[in-house]
Amino acid sequence: MRIAYQGEEGAYSEAAALRFNPSADPVPRLSFDDVFGAVAAGDVPYGILPIENTIAGSIHRNYDLMLEHELPIVAEVKHPIVHNLIVREGTELAQVRRVYSHPKGLEQCERFLRTLSGVEIVATYDTAGSAKMIQEQELNDTAAIASERAAEIFGLRVLRKGVQDVADNFTRFLIFSRDPAPLGTPDKTTIVFTVPNDPGALFKALSVFALRDIDLTKLESRPIPAQPFEYLFYADLSANREDLRCARALMHLAEFAPSLRTLGSYPAWKQTAAGVKSDVASS
Amino acid sequence: MRIAYQGEEGAYSEAAALRFNPSADPVPRLSFDDVFGAVAAGDVPYGILPIENTIAGSIHRNYDLMLEHELPIVAEVKHPIVHNLIVREGTELAQVRRVYSHPKGLEQCERFLRTLSGVEIVATYDTAGSAKMIQEQELNDTAAIASERAAEIFGLRVLRKGVQDVADNFTRFLIFSRDPAPLGTPDKTTIVFTVPNDPGALFKALSVFALRDIDLTKLESRPIPAQPFEYLFYADLSANREDLRCARALMHLAEFAPSLRTLGSYPAWKQTAAGVKSDVASS
Repeated sequence: MRIAYQGEEGAYSEAAALRFNPSADPVPRLSFDDVFGAVAAGDVPYGILPIENTIAGSIHRNYDLMLEHELPIVAEVKHPIVHNLIVREGTELAQVRRVYSHPKGLEQCERFLRTLSGVEIVATYDTAGSAKMIQEQELNDTAAIASERAAEIFGLRVLRKGVQDVADNFTRFLIFSRDPAPLGTPDKTTIVFTVPNDPGALFKALSVFALRDIDLTKLESRPIPAQPFEYLFYADLSANREDLRCARALMHLAEFAPSLRTLGSYPAWKQTAAGVKSDVASS
Repeated sequence: MRIAYQGEEGAYSEAAALRFNPSADPVPRLSFDDVFGAVAAGDVPYGILPIENTIAGSIHRNYDLMLEHELPIVAEVKHPIVHNLIVREGTELAQVRRVYSHPKGLEQCERFLRTLSGVEIVATYDTAGSAKMIQEQELNDTAAIASERAAEIFGLRVLRKGVQDVADNFTRFLIFSRDPAPLGTPDKTTIVFTVPNDPGALFKALSVFALRDIDLTKLESRPIPAQPFEYLFYADLSANREDLRCARALMHLAEFAPSLRTLGSYPAWKQTAAGVKSDVASS
């Protein structure tokens, strides 16, 4: 399973791809646009992108990319984000003068980073790329904020483990493809719709699911500054779009929603006692 | 009107405070915790914090701070975010070797920053602080990503205007105080509630507003990894909590929502043809 991700070897997106399928072959790309480009052109059959984080919330821009590129979602995976301060073998905290990471990584470790004095914080394009640079350039006075896997890959040491401000930090990733066949039995559907700016319009929209006992596992309004008379919603339904009741609910919604797009039906990621694990990827 | 904000002079939060009330006296604080601390201790009567951005979405962590500190929301303000590449007088783009900004600023200008070659991107605690440092240290090979106001304050020049990836970028800020008296006639209420993880539970929750013709201007579910059997929701209602129908709706919701907190009732920010402007602040 070749799957394109944004970043370098050791990136969280690569780890998420491997969590989904331990025998996957992740293919690095520079930007999210490049990931979509690789999948759209048929160079790589699958792509993965982060869509939502327990701390930072939904990544609106990545929803925009999903809408723009029209590649169906075929699976999801949830991956715990554990940031570590990693250094070359032999480097101690007192020697660290610079810390490299992606802006998101730096932001999620802000409280920890403030405890370091006389240290310069440098933003890079990748958490893992930062680790790579430290090893390649033999930087003994520099640390990276990155995953444990990035430390392993580049032969670095974890100096401080779990330095993110909030312990329970998960990111949800979506896997998409040109081929709409879901990777497993679909039981979840992601839709984007608008409702008119009237009292009760959203209630009416939700009634199409409630009347059919379809649960919503996510619902989020998004401000559209350019269209003050409509609201945009992201919703996840706990049903396959091809189930008759779900298909009917979507037809019902389309009767009065000015716009409705289905981004895909796919198997929901299953959480087990042993951690987050999919029954699909492990089968 | 003394109002604490996170950052330095020229920060977007300071600009938002002045947009709310042009004669306000913004008071800088190092961190969001310090802003809440200053207001809770009575050192400064008001505080302001960003809660939601059109590109990046809701800032879950700042909702957590609102819940933790229990200071009521008394007003809101929406402020357009325009990032600029700013430099000392005489510096040209070809001379720029480093770009300083806050991780959020860097992230929102990622496409532009990728067009610069041989330039190091450095994360700092503030957009405006970056501008200040460039002037103080007379850095002729360095640029900051910051507001036009930051350029003015520190005597710098805007080299490239509006370098953010997405043009229509607004941030919504909340103003809070120990004194719950709203700054104007309240017509908006922010609540946080949970619903049981049952099909139709959210629909029932929304029915308490729909049955009373109360519009929701925001609704967002938040994953709670530690509590898989409940969903947390943020909602904004277009009503004053003291209106009888709103008070009754909230009592009705409390009958079946495992938890319900009202963060405040306050005047909604009014958009006018001349831009975003409050009828309250200008009166």
